[in-house]
Amino acid sequence: MSEKEANTVFIGRKPTMSYVMAVITNFNSGDTKEVVLKARGRAITTAVNVAQVITRRFMKDLKVSKIGIGTEEVTPREGGDPRKVSTMEIVLTKP
Amino acid sequence: MSEKEANTVFIGRKPTMSYVMAVITNFNSGDTKEVVLKARGRAITTAVNVAQVITRRFMKDLKVSKIGIGTEEVTPREGGDPRKVSTMEIVLTKP
Repeated sequence: MSEKEANTVFIGRKPTMSYVMAVITNFNSGDTKEVVLKARGRAITTAVNVAQVITRRFMKDLKVSKIGIGTEEVTPREGGDPRKVSTMEIVLTKP
Repeated sequence: MSEKEANTVFIGRKPTMSYVMAVITNFNSGDTKEVVLKARGRAITTAVNVAQVITRRFMKDLKVSKIGIGTEEVTPREGGDPRKVSTMEIVLTKP
């Protein structure tokens, strides 16, 4: 894995702590300087929780270096019209 | 109301559109150049939805000028130990 490659953790429906652990593992492997949390819809709240728990409890030297929000079109698995879903990206960076 | 005063809309459990309307009303009254959306916990997702619906559908000239996340301690109304809740602030700005 190249040093510059951003590592991405997709936030879904698992408990917050699963993602906290995934991010910590990511930072502790190789030269990871940056991890990106990506979430859609309801998982956006979980993404914010993950960022807060990591930066306040586990890796206090990390910074939230960027937060972005957006919209994506999602086609339901069952078929039907695509609908718009909000997205969020939180970038965590090691000093 | 002073021109510099930031107007705040607190996002809660109402439907997204209620808050969209509140923000639009806010921008259309007086000299409002900036509206701040504030949300905690589950309402964070709604805040992102509100920002997206406004900037993409209703007021396309608005910009998301700042996004912040944080943590607050909330004491349950029923009493008991305070617990930590994630917070989010989205600043919408008129050009």
